[in-house]
Amino acid sequence: MSGVTTLTVGEKRGHTFFREAPVIAGYASIAGRKESDGPLGGQFHRIVKDETLGEKSFERAERKLLVEAVRLTLHRAEVDASEVDVMFSGDLLDQIVTANFAGRDLGIPLLGVYAACSTSTESLLLAAMAVSSGFAGYALAGTASHHLSAERQYRYPLELGVQRLPTSQWTATGAVAFLVGTAGEGRVAIRSGTVGRVHDAGIKDVNNMGAAMAPAAADTIARHLAARGQSFEDYDVVLTGDLGRVGHPLLVDLLKERGVDTDGRLADAGIMLYDQRQGVHAGGSGAACSALVAAAAILPGLESGTIRRALLVATGSLHSPRSYQQGESIPSIAHAVELEVVP
Amino acid sequence: MSGVTTLTVGEKRGHTFFREAPVIAGYASIAGRKESDGPLGGQFHRIVKDETLGEKSFERAERKLLVEAVRLTLHRAEVDASEVDVMFSGDLLDQIVTANFAGRDLGIPLLGVYAACSTSTESLLLAAMAVSSGFAGYALAGTASHHLSAERQYRYPLELGVQRLPTSQWTATGAVAFLVGTAGEGRVAIRSGTVGRVHDAGIKDVNNMGAAMAPAAADTIARHLAARGQSFEDYDVVLTGDLGRVGHPLLVDLLKERGVDTDGRLADAGIMLYDQRQGVHAGGSGAACSALVAAAAILPGLESGTIRRALLVATGSLHSPRSYQQGESIPSIAHAVELEVVP
Repeated sequence: MSGVTTLTVGEKRGHTFFREAPVIAGYASIAGRKESDGPLGGQFHRIVKDETLGEKSFERAERKLLVEAVRLTLHRAEVDASEVDVMFSGDLLDQIVTANFAGRDLGIPLLGVYAACSTSTESLLLAAMAVSSGFAGYALAGTASHHLSAERQYRYPLELGVQRLPTSQWTATGAVAFLVGTAGEGRVAIRSGTVGRVHDAGIKDVNNMGAAMAPAAADTIARHLAARGQSFEDYDVVLTGDLGRVGHPLLVDLLKERGVDTDGRLADAGIMLYDQRQGVHAGGSGAACSALVAAAAILPGLESGTIRRALLVATGSLHSPRSYQQGESIPSIAHAVELEVVP
Repeated sequence: MSGVTTLTVGEKRGHTFFREAPVIAGYASIAGRKESDGPLGGQFHRIVKDETLGEKSFERAERKLLVEAVRLTLHRAEVDASEVDVMFSGDLLDQIVTANFAGRDLGIPLLGVYAACSTSTESLLLAAMAVSSGFAGYALAGTASHHLSAERQYRYPLELGVQRLPTSQWTATGAVAFLVGTAGEGRVAIRSGTVGRVHDAGIKDVNNMGAAMAPAAADTIARHLAARGQSFEDYDVVLTGDLGRVGHPLLVDLLKERGVDTDGRLADAGIMLYDQRQGVHAGGSGAACSALVAAAAILPGLESGTIRRALLVATGSLHSPRSYQQGESIPSIAHAVELEVVP
C-alpha cells in the first residue's frame, strides 16, 4: 500500500507550531433539518428547515448555506467583509463550485481548497497560517455540504430509492465559517496544526469510508502528538470527523497498535451529529459534519472553559465517482488543528 | 454582476509582500506530444510522446505526469522527498484526484487546492507563504492537466468527433512542479503575490473561457500593481494564462479602461504554447498550460538574467460541467505571483 509509511518518532514534517498564535475571532454554524433534530440541534446558530432554501437547485441551496454562514460569522464578530484579506474555502461538489460561487457573492479574495470532508481543518489551518505570518489581518475558513447535492453527485439521486448499506454514512446539510484573527481578538487560540499524508488501505467500498479513513486519522494523530511531545492526556477531547461507527473503533485499534492510548478522550463527529434512531446507519459525514460538531460542541466548551484544549482531526476520502468507477481504491487524508483557551 | 467591485486604489487586501523572499529552489516540466511540437518544444525538461504513459486510463496517465514532474524537480534540485514539508497541488479533475493520488504515491504531506487553470499560481503563492512563515523549509507546488481526461470530463469524449468552436481553447497535456525554498537556495525570488477575487462577467459559453476570465485578470493585475506601487514598466513580462486569442485583447482593453498601459509587456501562455497551425483555435488552456510556459519561457530567462522581473497571472474558469448544465454563468479568478532575480 503506497503512502503508508512508518512514523519516524520526532519527525515534524507537515507540523506547524504558532508562536504568535492566531485566534478564532468568530464563527457561525447553519444546520439542516435532520441535523437540527439530532443531539446537537440546540447548539447551532441557525436552523434551515426548508432544504432548498428557496433556491431552484440543491447546488444553489448549498452555496447559499455557505454565503449565509460567512455573513453570520462576520455579523457576530462585528467585522465587515471588506476587512477580511482572504477566504480559504472548499466543498464536496465537482470543481468546488459551492466555494467558488460563494466567493463571487461575497467579494472576498478566495483561495480554493479541497480535502473532501477534511476541508474544514485544511482551511482553518491555512487561515491560521495566513494570519500568523502577517499575510492577513483576518482570514476566513469556510465549508459546506448538502445531503441532496452530495447524494446525486457521489451516489444515486434520492428519487431512485436505493437502499443504503449498514456501513453507509449520511452527508450532513449545513455550513460553518470560522473567522481567524490576531491575538486579542478572541479567547480560543489556534496553537498548532499537522498536515496530513495521503493513505490508502486498499479499500474500494465507497459505502465504507470510515474504514478507508481510519489509517489517515491514526497517522496524523500519532505524528501530531509526536511533533508536540504530547499524549491524549494533554487534550480534553480529540475530535475526529467523520469515521462513524465503523471507522471509530478501527482508529482506536490502530492507535493502540502504535502504542497510543486514547484515554477515553477520542470522539467522532460522525457519531455525535445524529442519534442512531435517525436512521443514518454508520453516522454522519460530509464537509460540514466535523465543522458543525466543532462549532456546536467544541468551540462553546473552549469559550466557557469546560474544555481547555482540543484537537480537531477532520478526515477526508479522496476518491471521485470516476476513480471509483475505474476500480481505484479510496485514498484518504486527515488534517489536525490544535485549539486551546488563551492562557 | 456580483463580485465585480471597483478597485480602491491602494487597497492591499489579498496582497502579500515577502520581506524574506523565498526562492524557486528547483522546477521541472513534462510536456505532451502536441506541446512538444509547439514553439516551446525545445524548452521542456521531458517530453511524453505516448499520452497514455503506458497506463490504462488517461486519468492514471495524468497523475503519472504529476508524480514524474515532482520526482524530476526533486532530482534536479538534489532534494529528497523526505525533506519536503508540504506539497500544494491541484488539477482539473473532479475531487482533484490527480493531486490526491499523486500525494499518495509521493508520501509528502498534502494540502489540496483548486482554482482551475489558476491552480499553478495559487499553489506557488501558498508554497511561498509556507516557506516565508517558517512553516516549511521546502514546499512543493505542482499541477497537471491532460487533454484527453479534461475533454471527456468537461466537454465530449474525443471519440464523438464533436467540432470545436473558433473560441475554444485546447487543454494542454503536461505537468510542472516548483520547489520553493529559503533564500540562498536559488536565484529566483518570489517577491510578492496577490490573491484573486471571483469575477463573473455573466458569460455562459464554456467555449469562450478567455472572455469569461479576462475581467478577473484585469482586476488582479490592477490590484497587484496598485498594492506594489508598480506599473507594467517594472516588469519585463506579465504572463497571463490562459486567455488565448479571444481573451488577451479583451484584457488589454479592460486594463486600458482602468488607465493601465500594458506597455507591450503583456503576454499570454495560451497564445505562446502552440502555433496557430496546430489547430488549437483560440489557444491553449488547462492547469498545466500557464505552468508549462512559465517553466519553459520565464524561469530560464530569470535564471540567465535576460528577464529581471516577471509577473505570473494564471487565470481560472470556476464553473463545473453541472453548473454549466444548470444554466449558471462562468465565474473566474486570477492569482498573481511576482518573480524577480535575487539582487
